This record gives sequence, structure tokens and C-alpha cells, in this order.
Amino acid sequence: MTIRLGDNQYGKAETHVVRVTRGAMHELKDMTVSIALAGDFAATHITGDNAHVVPTDTQKNTVFAFANDAVAEIEDFALRLGRHFVSDHRAVRRARVSIAEQPWARITVGGRPHPHAFQKDGSEQRLTAVTCTQNSEWVVSGITGLTLLKSTGSEFWGYGKDHFTTLPETRDRVLATAVDARWRYAGLGIDWAEAHAEARRLLIETFAITHSRSLQQTLYAMGEAVLESRPEVAEIRLSMPNRHHFAVDLTPFGLDNANEVFYAADRPYGLIEGTVARDDVAPADEAW
Amino acid sequence: MTIRLGDNQYGKAETHVVRVTRGAMHELKDMTVSIALAGDFAATHITGDNAHVVPTDTQKNTVFAFANDAVAEIEDFALRLGRHFVSDHRAVRRARVSIAEQPWARITVGGRPHPHAFQKDGSEQRLTAVTCTQNSEWVVSGITGLTLLKSTGSEFWGYGKDHFTTLPETRDRVLATAVDARWRYAGLGIDWAEAHAEARRLLIETFAITHSRSLQQTLYAMGEAVLESRPEVAEIRLSMPNRHHFAVDLTPFGLDNANEVFYAADRPYGLIEGTVARDDVAPADEAW
Amino acid sequence: MTIRLGDNQYGKAETHVVRVTRGAMHELKDMTVSIALAGDFAATHITGDNAHVVPTDTQKNTVFAFANDAVAEIEDFALRLGRHFVSDHRAVRRARVSIAEQPWARITVGGRPHPHAFQKDGSEQRLTAVTCTQNSEWVVSGITGLTLLKSTGSEFWGYGKDHFTTLPETRDRVLATAVDARWRYAGLGIDWAEAHAEARRLLIETFAITHSRSLQQTLYAMGEAVLESRPEVAEIRLSMPNRHHFAVDLTPFGLDNANEVFYAADRPYGLIEGTVARDDVAPADEAW
Amino acid sequence: MTIRLGDNQYGKAETHVVRVTRGAMHELKDMTVSIALAGDFAATHITGDNAHVVPTDTQKNTVFAFANDAVAEIEDFALRLGRHFVSDHRAVRRARVSIAEQPWARITVGGRPHPHAFQKDGSEQRLTAVTCTQNSEWVVSGITGLTLLKSTGSEFWGYGKDHFTTLPETRDRVLATAVDARWRYAGLGIDWAEAHAEARRLLIETFAITHSRSLQQTLYAMGEAVLESRPEVAEIRLSMPNRHHFAVDLTPFGLDNANEVFYAADRPYGLIEGTVARDDVAPADEAW
Repeated sequence: MTIRLGDNQYGKAETHVVRVTRGAMHELKDMTVSIALAGDFAATHITGDNAHVVPTDTQKNTVFAFANDAVAEIEDFALRLGRHFVSDHRAVRRARVSIAEQPWARITVGGRPHPHAFQKDGSEQRLTAVTCTQNSEWVVSGITGLTLLKSTGSEFWGYGKDHFTTLPETRDRVLATAVDARWRYAGLGIDWAEAHAEARRLLIETFAITHSRSLQQTLYAMGEAVLESRPEVAEIRLSMPNRHHFAVDLTPFGLDNANEVFYAADRPYGLIEGTVARDDVAPADEAW
Repeated sequence: MTIRLGDNQYGKAETHVVRVTRGAMHELKDMTVSIALAGDFAATHITGDNAHVVPTDTQKNTVFAFANDAVAEIEDFALRLGRHFVSDHRAVRRARVSIAEQPWARITVGGRPHPHAFQKDGSEQRLTAVTCTQNSEWVVSGITGLTLLKSTGSEFWGYGKDHFTTLPETRDRVLATAVDARWRYAGLGIDWAEAHAEARRLLIETFAITHSRSLQQTLYAMGEAVLESRPEVAEIRLSMPNRHHFAVDLTPFGLDNANEVFYAADRPYGLIEGTVARDDVAPADEAW
Repeated sequence: MTIRLGDNQYGKAETHVVRVTRGAMHELKDMTVSIALAGDFAATHITGDNAHVVPTDTQKNTVFAFANDAVAEIEDFALRLGRHFVSDHRAVRRARVSIAEQPWARITVGGRPHPHAFQKDGSEQRLTAVTCTQNSEWVVSGITGLTLLKSTGSEFWGYGKDHFTTLPETRDRVLATAVDARWRYAGLGIDWAEAHAEARRLLIETFAITHSRSLQQTLYAMGEAVLESRPEVAEIRLSMPNRHHFAVDLTPFGLDNANEVFYAADRPYGLIEGTVARDDVAPADEAW
Repeated sequence: MTIRLGDNQYGKAETHVVRVTRGAMHELKDMTVSIALAGDFAATHITGDNAHVVPTDTQKNTVFAFANDAVAEIEDFALRLGRHFVSDHRAVRRARVSIAEQPWARITVGGRPHPHAFQKDGSEQRLTAVTCTQNSEWVVSGITGLTLLKSTGSEFWGYGKDHFTTLPETRDRVLATAVDARWRYAGLGIDWAEAHAEARRLLIETFAITHSRSLQQTLYAMGEAVLESRPEVAEIRLSMPNRHHFAVDLTPFGLDNANEVFYAADRPYGLIEGTVARDDVAPADEAW
């Protein structure tokens, strides 16, 4: 029997950098950057020889230094960082740079946009994870924290019953979820901002207009809508909790709840996860 | 020596009720309701005699039952609940009903508002805490989670120095905070929605336009602006963390950071708390 | 009408300092320190004149510098810090220093205590909040995150019923809570470590041995036990959520739940808050 | 171009069940159970036909019903649940049941164990994830939230330097981490409780006794120790953040910090992830 080192990676996680671009109207970019490097790092594990190690402190410094140049979109910034680690450090076979961007909205004063005052814009974040090797590069972007709710237009019936089934069927329920979406781009020369905005719009609008017979159906429709309209997206992975809203039984109080009063439960919750992909695009496990 | 029961209260906390109002365009009200009752509850503490106790489960039921009627603004709903507990239960001398409202925005599809699809609107919440006794009622409303940032227009210098001071003075720093505001209304017959929207607007705009020499100065200006414009507000209490953004020293890398690249720190943070009040309005400690 | 500055305070919150004391056996003290200063700070609010301001950055430095001397108990450390700010800065009328201590346990290897390896010991934290003015000093200590559960020995019945009551009475329920306790010491020359350990032991043991007819009764018994045995404690304030464990109805599945299978709910929850005090000790609102 | 459904699964997440076993001394089992089913679920995604769907509500009911029998170890309970879903529902090709167990310690009163009073025991949780298909079963168990610290016996030097390196080398630093460990068992007929306790003991003791030249080296040594002593473990995956403790520079205050006063930072942090495996054991990607 021999014991061996298997897959491994390391890096600096969650460097929170805020980049202001000065001018008549300031611009703001709020990014939390996580780096993971894989490669020829057996020595540090087995003997403690760190000669190949790029310290995570150096990685953090690199994030700040690179942010001194124009950042552009998070996909651009992640690609610059990923390429740097792969090209400048021979031990690094694969660099993955993940960025969560917190959007900020410009404050308006008396109806006019203020040049340098901003307001945090929601709990939703824009994501990217770029993977660079010597030969290949993949970009996976996405969204987290996009919470959606339909107050009607959702049914759930016709499901399998067994000894443990007590759930009544319903033709009209509240459907609520917090979308966590990641999509892999088919290439690199893409207008990242537009691609992201359109994928997001399609997800939201499809959630709204799909008459839902199951959250799975809604999930698939959302992914399909993105793939149908956006040729630059190769596949999309969605993770969507079912945030249950239970109609409260008010009959003990002599009241009729016309499907208007709901208890929003925390746990447990359903969790629906699925991938929607193109038949003619090769999978790319290395991208994830 | 005698041991005695001092101040006490109890109630059901964080009943999360979502109220849909059906119609051509559905409306959505997402409230987390906490109730605290004080009064003649010595017996349950000392002998375990619960005859005076309104179970917290009953309080929860009451929230759901009351939500079956039109909810209106959270201040209205909290007043209805508070009055109910004080009037229907003789043991209850004081009922405090606190509500946090999560705003949702209507989804637009193809530019048109959708009748029953919504999107969670930010991490900011609207708050109220209503206190009812047999003789009096107070309404304190507010905001939590309103995160603001100015990328310039903030200085900090001229402060006291002692043996432990190392902070360099600055004429241009990033100023960021998450506003937690509570204001007490002077009366009851108020347009709650308008009063809240205007207080919020004044807080945000004043943050933006105040050239800041300290976060204290900004805080006071924000409170003053609300009191100056809104006669219905008797006093306002603000709690504002200083979410430090430190300019990164890039000189080790041969780079000049033109006050554009910042490290956003988590902890420790400054915490500034202050009250702005009117001279001619009596304090009301019972309201808080 | 005049607008004026009311109560205000400011300071550095959550400076996380870990103090190692070297020797044959290392010792570890893990403290998160928050400081709040009140006093003559009107100028910075109203004109932005910071001459009286002790920057929060200086406060943070002071915490680290003071930790270079022996720290002793958190009450001692908080008193040293509080006295420093009041005595060295004339503008400071009141300094409050709050410390949360994270306990660590020494790791044993082969049954023997290791000289310098530690393991975080639980989610419970020891607390203190020391308030210093020119003339007075108060010490309030406590516990947070102490989660307790009784699987029997708890009843709840005989409560008031109204139109909204549906809760069935029970002679045997699970009682679970997360104790948040703060007690004010009557003086200063106290063995803080022993006083804390004994108050904690009394709270836990009393929770265990009290046959409970309500969580209020348990709360009062816990506070009373501390006051009866510990003359150095002037009053104690307890906040105890009722972490509901609902027996699951298994009859739909042909099963009999012998009060053994429970659903542990998150929200809503009961929240019971109460003070137990001595008749012969003056209150001290300034201490809280 | 055809769009297709890729990998997908769904289930009820985070059913929090507390199982009391009555007797002279009560026993307590606190489990949060998450289920994920994969199989023949294309119809619900594509047409909304739910005939094959086992509702997540039914899954929750099943957890509670199964908990009415003796639960034994979490691995046993997860296997019972996983086998049920695979054998009773033809559409289910793979069931994964993940359980997080919160340990509770028995309260002692006057030095004697109390029959039915318990105290939550720390922030560490015991984990298992069992995967069942028609033909195979895998058990992956683990730990999360095990926070460890060494106040000496850790170096970091000899690493690669580049243009962005500023970190000074050190021969004596604090090393702190929160171990997240998952290990795959080679088979099924295992004493789960003993195997878990021993793996945990080996991880902790190895952390303590390894003189560390890098966190990677410590991670590998910890995994290797488990594999060397526990033949039932096929491989182990470790994720260990480097919770930086920075020695504070006290020279501005005329003080010498003898490597005793540290600032414990939150973010960014290093993140070290690695697998330690046996050469003679086949990988089993389906188990993870």
C-alpha cells in the first residue's frame, strides 16, 4: 500500500477590492476575488519545500496591483489574472480566478445623478469563474442571490404517491426561489456585459411567463430560454431552492384564506438542480 | 435580602408572513413580525401559573388571522396588532409589535409590468416598532441595510493625537456605511408610506451632498435634514458603521495608486451612533 | 423649533486580538474588543471639528498595545482600557469596553496536554461590558450562545385562551433555548474567573433540575439561583428564545410517535426576556 | 442544434429532526438531513408531467417516519433512507442522503450526569453523505467546523518570489484553520462511530504534532495519518482555510511584541485543498 497526494489546489480567497475610476463622474467596481492554483505542488505537501509555492499573500498583492489598471468587466479582469499566474509561474498548471461583483447604483439627488455617491444595489451578485491552463481558457459566469416569486401561475399535482405522501395537490400555489445560475461561454471574444445582462433578463422573464407545473419545469424553461437566444452560451447549470410559502389554514378562526395569506418557511426546503446544454457542444469538466 | 422579578416581556418573534392581494395586478407584502408583551406576568415566572399568559403560538395565529384583512402599511398593521393585545388581554400592559418589511419589485417582461411575478428588491428593509399601552401609542419607523458609499468628498484630519495614534490625516477618503435609522413619529395620523419614502430620500441625498469632515458630521446632517423637512418626525436615531476602505500601497510594485484601488475591510470597523432631536418635543423612552 | 444633538457615542468595534503567552505551556486569549466613547463630541457632529475626537484607529492601536502586557481576565482588560480613555482624554465622559472571549481548549495528544496546540471550544462565548466614567465603574458580564435542551420535565398548560388559540396543552414537551445572560456585579474587587464559572454553572444546573411549567418559570429560577448563591451579582438579565421542537404526527404513516421524534423549527420562535434583581441594590442604568 | 437536459437532481434539503430515545437516561440525536434524487426525471423538466416525481414533502415525511425506529449512527440512518428511495421508486437511479449531526453533551449536576438535560456541544458537526444506486453504495463521512490553532511550531519560508511578493519569511508563526474533512470508506460493514472518532482524533493530533513548513504539509500529514492507521478509509479530502494571525507591529508605541499579540483577520484568507488517497484503491467519483 502506498499513500499518495491526489487532486489539490490552493490560493487566496475573498480579496475584497473596490476600484474607483475618477473623472467627472466616478465609476465604482466592487469585487471579491478568489484564486485557486493547481500544478506542481507535491513538494510543499510532502516535504514542506515551498520553492514552487506562490504565496497567497503574493496573489492578494497581484489582485490589488492589477486593479490599478482599468478593470473592464470581471471576466476580463479574471482572465488577466489567470493568464498571469499560468504564464509567470511554471509550477502553475491551472489557475482559477473567481470573482463576485457587488453592484452599486448611482445616487440621484433632486433627480440628477450624483458624480461620486453610490448605493449598494441589492443582494444579487454577478459571478465569474475563469479557468486558465497552458493551452486552454474557459469562462463560466453567473448570478447568485436572485430571488424570484410568482404569486400564481404555479401548480403541483400528478406526482407519485407512496406510503409517506401527505401533500395535497394544488392548482395554484406561490412559487419562490433564489436563483443560482452558472453558464459556460462557448468562447472568449464576447461582450461580457451584454451577454450577462441578456442571460439575466431571459432567466427572469422566463420565470415570470412560464406557467409552472413543477419547479423543475420552470428551471428547464429558464435554461432553455438562455440557450435558445444566446449562442455564446454553451451550457447552463441552475440550482434553485423551493422557498415554500404555505397557505395558512384560517378556518379555526372562522376565516376563509382566499390563497392570500402565506407562511414563508425557512427549512426544510426543496432544492432543484439541473443542467441545460447543447447537443453539439463538447462538455468541459475542467471549466467547473 | 429579597430577590424580585424586574422588567420582563415575552412574545413570538419573527413570524414571516407573506400577504398576496389578488386582482388584475397582484400585490405583495412580505413582513417578519415580532411581538413582545409586558404586563402582569409575575405568576408564570414565580409559580408557573400561566393563567395570564397569551401563548406565543396564539400571537403567531393572530398575526396570520389579521393579515387576512387588508394590511395597508406596516405601521397600520402593527397598530392593529398592538391594540388587539392591549385591549383583549387585561394582563397586557404594553404590547410592542416590530415589523421588518422586505420590498419586492414587480418584474417587467418586454418592458411591461407582469401581473404576478416579483423580484426581491435589495437587502434594505423597512422597519417599524409600534408600542401600545392602555393610554398611549408610539410609532418608531426606520430602515436597516441601506449601504452607501462616497468615493470622494470625505476628509478626516485635525483629530486628537496621543501616544497610540498612527493614522495619517487625509483630505480625500472613501466613506462607506450601512445606515441603520429609527425615527419616532410625533403622532399617529400620518401618511406612513410617504413619510417613510421622504425620510429615506433625505437620508440618502444628504449623505451624498454633505462634504464630510467626519462620519459624525455626516450622521448629524442626515438626521437634521429629516427633522428640518419632516415635521411629523420627533427624533431620529442613527447607527452607522464606518466601513473602512483603505487605499492600497502599490509602491512596492512600482505603481502609483491615484486613490483608486481600495481594500474593503470587514473588521474592526468604526461605529458611530447618534440621536438628532427637536428641542420642543418631549422625549419618549417608552417608545424605544 | 431648534434641532439638537442627543445621545451619541462612537468607537472601534470588533477588534479581534489573540494574545499568546509563551512559556513551557503556551496560553491563549482570544478576544473581540469593542469600544464606545461618549462625551464632549458635539463639535465633530455639528461643525466637523475633530479636535476632541480620539480616532477609532487609535482605539484599535490601544487595544493591541495594551494586550502586550498580561491580559488577565477580560474584565481586568476592559477596565484597564476603559480607565485609560476616561483619564487620558478629557472629552471622554464615558467609555464602554465590551469584550467577547472565544474559549479554546488545549489539545491532548496520547492523553497528554500539548504545549501549544489548541482547539476552538464551542460556540458559547464569555462576555463583559465595562463602563467607566470619571467617578464610577460598572462591570456587566455574561454568556452568549449557551444552548440547552431538556427532553422531558417541561409542561405548558393552563394558559389563557382566546379566539386565536389552537395550541394543545402539554404535560411533556421538549424545552430548548439559547441562553443570553448578562449580570451586573455589585463591585469591583471580584475573582472574575470564579464568579463567571459559578454563575454559568448555576444557570446550567438550574435549567436542568427545574421542572418547568413555562420558560418564564425556568428563566426566573435560573436568575434566582445565581443571585441566591453569588452575593457579588447585583442583578441578572436573561434573554431566552424558545427553540420549538414539535412532536411530529406520524399517524398518517400508521406509526405511533411516543414523543420521541421532533421537528426543530427555526422561525418563528418564542422570546422570553426577564430581569432578576435584589431588592436592596440600587439600579444602575448607566451600566447597561 | 438541439437543447437537452443534462445532469439533474432534486430533493428536500435540511430537514432538522431531533430524535429522543427515552429510558432511565434519555439519549439525543440531532440531525439535519438533506436528500438528493437523480434518475428518470426528464418528464417533469420538459413537459411538467410529475408522475415520476417523489415530492420533496414526501421525502421529509419519510425522514421523520424512519426516525421513529432506532436511528443508530448517521451512516446507518442515511443508508436506510437511501436504500428506501432507490428500491421503492423505480425512477430513482441514485439517492444521496447527507446528514449533519450536531453533538450534544449531557449536563452534569453536582458532578452527576442528568438523565434528560443536554448542552449543545460546540460548533463542530459530524457529517455523512451516503450515495445509493441499484448496484452500489458509498459512504463518505466527515467533519466540519473543527477549528485548530498552533501558537508556534509553524514556519513559512523558501517560497517563490516574484514582482508582487512582499511577505517576509517567518520561522515562527501562528497557524490556525477550520478543518473541513470528508473521507470515503472502502466498504460498508464498519463501526461508524469508532471510525469517525479515530479519524477525528488522528486529524487533531497530527495537526498538533506536525512541525509545519506550510499548511499544505500539515494537510497532507493529517490525511496520511488517517490513511496509515485506518484501513477502512479509502481516501480523504481536506479543505483548510489559513486563518491568518498577523503579529502586530508595536514599535510605534515603543513596545516590543515578542510574537505574542496577533490580529486575527477575517478576509482574505488562504484556502488549501487536497486529497490524500491510496494507490491500490479505485477512485469512486460517484461517491462525492
